[in-house]
Amino acid sequence: MTALWLIVLCGVLSIVYAIWATSSVLGADAGSPRMQEIAGAVREGAQAYLRRQYTTIGIVGIVIFLLLAYFLGIYVAVGFAIGAILSGAAGFIGMNVSVRANVRTAQAATTSLAGGLELAFKAGAITGLLVAGLALLGVTLYFGFLTYSLKLAPDSRTVVDAMVALGFGASLISIFARLGGGIFTKGADVGGDLVGKVEAGIPEDDPRNPATIADNVGDNVGDCAGMAADLFETYAVTAVATMVLAAIFFAKTPILASMMTLPLAIGGICIITSIIGTFFVKLGPSQSIMGALYKGLIATGVLSLIGIAGVIYYLIGFGKLDGVDYTGMALFECGVVGLIVTALIIWITEYYTGTDYRPVKSIAQASVTGHGTNVIQGLAVSMEATALPAIVIIAGILVTYSLAGLFGIAIATATMLALAGMVVALDAFGPVTDNAGGIAEMAGLPKEVRKSTDALDAVGNTTKAVTKGYAIGSAGLGALVLFAAYNQDLKFFVADSAHHTYFAGVNPDFSLNNPYVVVGLLFGGLLPYLFGAMGMTAVGRAAGAIVEEVRRQFREKPGIMQGTDKPDYGKAVDLLTKAAIKEMIIPSLLPVLSPIVVYFVIYAISGGGAAGKSAAFSAVGAMLLGVIVTGLFVAISMTSGGGAWDNAKKYIEDGHFGGKGSDAHKSAVTGDTVGDPYKDTAGPAVNPMIKITNIVALLLLAILAH
Amino acid sequence: MTALWLIVLCGVLSIVYAIWATSSVLGADAGSPRMQEIAGAVREGAQAYLRRQYTTIGIVGIVIFLLLAYFLGIYVAVGFAIGAILSGAAGFIGMNVSVRANVRTAQAATTSLAGGLELAFKAGAITGLLVAGLALLGVTLYFGFLTYSLKLAPDSRTVVDAMVALGFGASLISIFARLGGGIFTKGADVGGDLVGKVEAGIPEDDPRNPATIADNVGDNVGDCAGMAADLFETYAVTAVATMVLAAIFFAKTPILASMMTLPLAIGGICIITSIIGTFFVKLGPSQSIMGALYKGLIATGVLSLIGIAGVIYYLIGFGKLDGVDYTGMALFECGVVGLIVTALIIWITEYYTGTDYRPVKSIAQASVTGHGTNVIQGLAVSMEATALPAIVIIAGILVTYSLAGLFGIAIATATMLALAGMVVALDAFGPVTDNAGGIAEMAGLPKEVRKSTDALDAVGNTTKAVTKGYAIGSAGLGALVLFAAYNQDLKFFVADSAHHTYFAGVNPDFSLNNPYVVVGLLFGGLLPYLFGAMGMTAVGRAAGAIVEEVRRQFREKPGIMQGTDKPDYGKAVDLLTKAAIKEMIIPSLLPVLSPIVVYFVIYAISGGGAAGKSAAFSAVGAMLLGVIVTGLFVAISMTSGGGAWDNAKKYIEDGHFGGKGSDAHKSAVTGDTVGDPYKDTAGPAVNPMIKITNIVALLLLAILAH
Repeated sequence: MTALWLIVLCGVLSIVYAIWATSSVLGADAGSPRMQEIAGAVREGAQAYLRRQYTTIGIVGIVIFLLLAYFLGIYVAVGFAIGAILSGAAGFIGMNVSVRANVRTAQAATTSLAGGLELAFKAGAITGLLVAGLALLGVTLYFGFLTYSLKLAPDSRTVVDAMVALGFGASLISIFARLGGGIFTKGADVGGDLVGKVEAGIPEDDPRNPATIADNVGDNVGDCAGMAADLFETYAVTAVATMVLAAIFFAKTPILASMMTLPLAIGGICIITSIIGTFFVKLGPSQSIMGALYKGLIATGVLSLIGIAGVIYYLIGFGKLDGVDYTGMALFECGVVGLIVTALIIWITEYYTGTDYRPVKSIAQASVTGHGTNVIQGLAVSMEATALPAIVIIAGILVTYSLAGLFGIAIATATMLALAGMVVALDAFGPVTDNAGGIAEMAGLPKEVRKSTDALDAVGNTTKAVTKGYAIGSAGLGALVLFAAYNQDLKFFVADSAHHTYFAGVNPDFSLNNPYVVVGLLFGGLLPYLFGAMGMTAVGRAAGAIVEEVRRQFREKPGIMQGTDKPDYGKAVDLLTKAAIKEMIIPSLLPVLSPIVVYFVIYAISGGGAAGKSAAFSAVGAMLLGVIVTGLFVAISMTSGGGAWDNAKKYIEDGHFGGKGSDAHKSAVTGDTVGDPYKDTAGPAVNPMIKITNIVALLLLAILAH
Repeated sequence: MTALWLIVLCGVLSIVYAIWATSSVLGADAGSPRMQEIAGAVREGAQAYLRRQYTTIGIVGIVIFLLLAYFLGIYVAVGFAIGAILSGAAGFIGMNVSVRANVRTAQAATTSLAGGLELAFKAGAITGLLVAGLALLGVTLYFGFLTYSLKLAPDSRTVVDAMVALGFGASLISIFARLGGGIFTKGADVGGDLVGKVEAGIPEDDPRNPATIADNVGDNVGDCAGMAADLFETYAVTAVATMVLAAIFFAKTPILASMMTLPLAIGGICIITSIIGTFFVKLGPSQSIMGALYKGLIATGVLSLIGIAGVIYYLIGFGKLDGVDYTGMALFECGVVGLIVTALIIWITEYYTGTDYRPVKSIAQASVTGHGTNVIQGLAVSMEATALPAIVIIAGILVTYSLAGLFGIAIATATMLALAGMVVALDAFGPVTDNAGGIAEMAGLPKEVRKSTDALDAVGNTTKAVTKGYAIGSAGLGALVLFAAYNQDLKFFVADSAHHTYFAGVNPDFSLNNPYVVVGLLFGGLLPYLFGAMGMTAVGRAAGAIVEEVRRQFREKPGIMQGTDKPDYGKAVDLLTKAAIKEMIIPSLLPVLSPIVVYFVIYAISGGGAAGKSAAFSAVGAMLLGVIVTGLFVAISMTSGGGAWDNAKKYIEDGHFGGKGSDAHKSAVTGDTVGDPYKDTAGPAVNPMIKITNIVALLLLAILAH
């Protein structure tokens, strides 16, 4: 009980930090009236979009809430609501800070790079710590309420189902936010660039471009709010899955409650280390932005190492654990592996997306020979970028499994995600600086300001790719954990088929010899591809609509280009809002419906009865791994490849291979455009898609059991 | 015995057809001296390249031959040699016909479209029937020699290993030919287009472009010889895998020999139906080229249905079969499913790559807004194009498994590939018409000729994509068959561990619960990505070298552009030959070495001993499925996407969205360039890569057993 309260305290600390940092950000100089006017337009657009998005999701959410309440009871439905509301809140609050920090960052950058970095990073850290803190608080408080206030057994069906439903709520918000935000931001970005840079020949963020406010709105609703919901979901689902496994492995041992608390405790201590870490982010004499961020990350990592050791010692000790054949020390070592995997994935992603290394330079070099070779090399880099992360994940699985079996893998994954506060902070400063650059451009601030914000933005491209690689990497590392949660749940129902008569005689076979397993793997493998295709198409359509709209405005108001007439920014924002909300629905339903459809189709094809159920459960289980096997590669290739394309363009703009305006630059802009939906729409949405598929499968089991 | 001789007769018939068709092609008018001069240059270049490629592969081949002879005995090594030599021969002969048919097709097209189609298709049919005929003869004669002349039991280790080695020989040639040829052809194509079309502003195949002969050489060495080796390999490996399964499932039954002969007999009868089918390819009054090809395909399909029924009735009857619980009728139905899967995959591929349907039109439409949107839409189409084929394959697995278990899937796959003669014929006419167009352009033939060859070429883009989808689709359908061959072999050695002491105490666990299985799936999944990245990079590098070379020639010989000086075509051919040979080695070794490395690394990590062996065998087995799960999607997306990009360009060139020279056309050229290495280098090479991984795993078992 004390442990739970201490964990809650950590969560509260993150909120205290957020409040302090918010007031500190809001206290900064908000710049000239012109800057505030622009920022105001961005803020209004972002809030209007988010309001509409949440209303739409709210309707879907209420339907699901009622269904869950009907099928699985009110506690499960409330779990779902908590996950959904907190996930939405993390994104909403983060975005609201972001749209206020952007103009202040632009103002601070007029003085120094360090000032800009400090403000932008502080804004990012608010989102980061809210994500981790709210996720931790939601899971911990609801778990505590169910087990201590309602006195339910920690491993009872209601508690497990309620925790899974919490993950589901978070995932559902996340996929809508990722996709809707992604379609909005990239529709604006691609469409705006096409008419602006390519057709009209005006620079990025030029105030004459009617899509420019929408582009800046997009940074906030996609890169900030969407990302926050995604990481919230990843954090919550991993914590929940680890708790479910603990409930199974340590059932009927005296350490059950401690083991279930362990992932939460690791999350709690890492919030504190993340808060401390944020104070280490300071620009050194080398003026290296990435170096400053690394300082914060390394400080957090080292402190977490010590903190996790303390937590494990306090909760379960380093000695042999009841009921299993490994020690607390082994679990600590698994946590260390989780930190190492995080570090390696960050480092590999930086290599593939940073402007200092071969991959980005090779894309820049390939731009010299044209659009085609730029894209070919970018695609080659994007595919290559999957190899090392996959090998790191494979090594992580092998090492942690040998240390402490499946639960070792779970603890490593939970530890990996415990750093979410810091990692999200590194990412969420990106949209703030991107916006700051836009505001600087539109408000006509001196060139040096834009140079500072551009430098921050280039690093932001890398850190954005890092967060995505980290999120999907944790899904890969945790693949077996998610599958095990399904498998163990299924075993539970089968063993208890006296109460759960639906499962009588069911005997799933997850061997690769079983054709239903192969079918499941292939079907799961298809999901990220189909989902990616839908996301890309949606962006293409939204961008096309923007192109038409901007052309119309240029045509009807010739004064815009001369600067004598003002473009109608609101129209573009409005158009994209509608497009994004409409386009996000069907792809989001794909992972929700797939496990259900696969189950019933296979059940029918394989002749029904207990044999049909066995076949169908086997196929659904295999599907959960299939979606990770291709999803891991699709997501990493898209997010790293997109980041590399973007930075190859920045590398050329820095004066290499002919610099701005050269043919190489034009080719690099094409690559950047291609990379946009890759890295910011389709790629990052794969992670919540994987989670939803897994969680819906768990809920399907629970519903069939009733 | 009679059955084997009848099958051999079918194989011989294919060769008789090839000889007749060759003399008929060579008897056609070879055009003007200028045309013959150009065709001569293409022929010389292609022969020079193939000589060099085969020399290099020959060296690798001799090393492997010696290793196999040492480890597994001379019969196994001879099997390897037979597979390698015949696979090479199919490509070599096909290409030699192709380089003679090209100029004759150009000449025939001066009279009529029908004349051009007839000649080009006849040339393609030679390659097609040689592929099927030589593969069938190789497998049948060597199997007959081992079992009848040497009196070895059909299911003895020597026979099984020798057959597997035959598949390995074919696969090894195939991956080198696919990659080497693919790098050559796309290096020439991409590089030539970049300097020619984009920089110098001269049309495709303009004789002033020093890379133009190399481009035409590439069509022959990549699209013709490489493709032939690939399909030979697919045909041989599937036949062998089905025979291996028959040897296991029907061991010690009186019908063992008949069941092992069955896949060969189906192949034999389908050669006859394919030969008949070729005579149905005639341009109707509607002048629809695709319609003419479909007539031949449908005739072959319908006749094959009847023929396969006859073969099954004659060999094993329609009644219940010894030792299993399904009937001959059920196996016939599986064959029907194989034909239906083939038809559906062809139809789906046509939908995604044909100029008459939404996907290609959507890419053409997206070209209007620029290079970026063209590529985004192309990538979206490429990903979407995987969904329906995957679902067809899934349905095929489910239906055939429910009809006749694993052997039913094997028979369906074998039937699917029995049509290879006809399918390859549909494909191999593509490079002939592509060349014919080039020759027409260079020799300054009237515009209408080029129009005829362009119409043929557009259909060729679709049929090329069809063959690739068909080859990889058969790998997907046969995934379980390939895995089963590994699993059953492993079981055999474990059960007989008294003789094969290495396998004592080994107990592999292929369940998805096993972390080694998940690790194997992920590692297998990574291979197509890394392999694809290598292929794309290689093309980029080769194209870059060509760009430099062409620029150098333009600079040093200014007369080239005025038409007063002749470019040095040989230099570009030579340069690409060296580049392709060099670049093909490392990616080709990836699938050869991966199973071996994974085995020993996992063995070491998991602590060695029998437990370590069990873990390692489990991981290798899972890797075989992992490589198919991602490989299927990578390959289909690349081949269909590339075809769609190419035809979107053609669609615009036909006068849509502004036609030739418009901005939309420029964007479409970019998409076409990106699609080139996608569809002709990386994508198609995934299929032999999957097979090699599987076959090396089988050979690894055999070697460890010794």
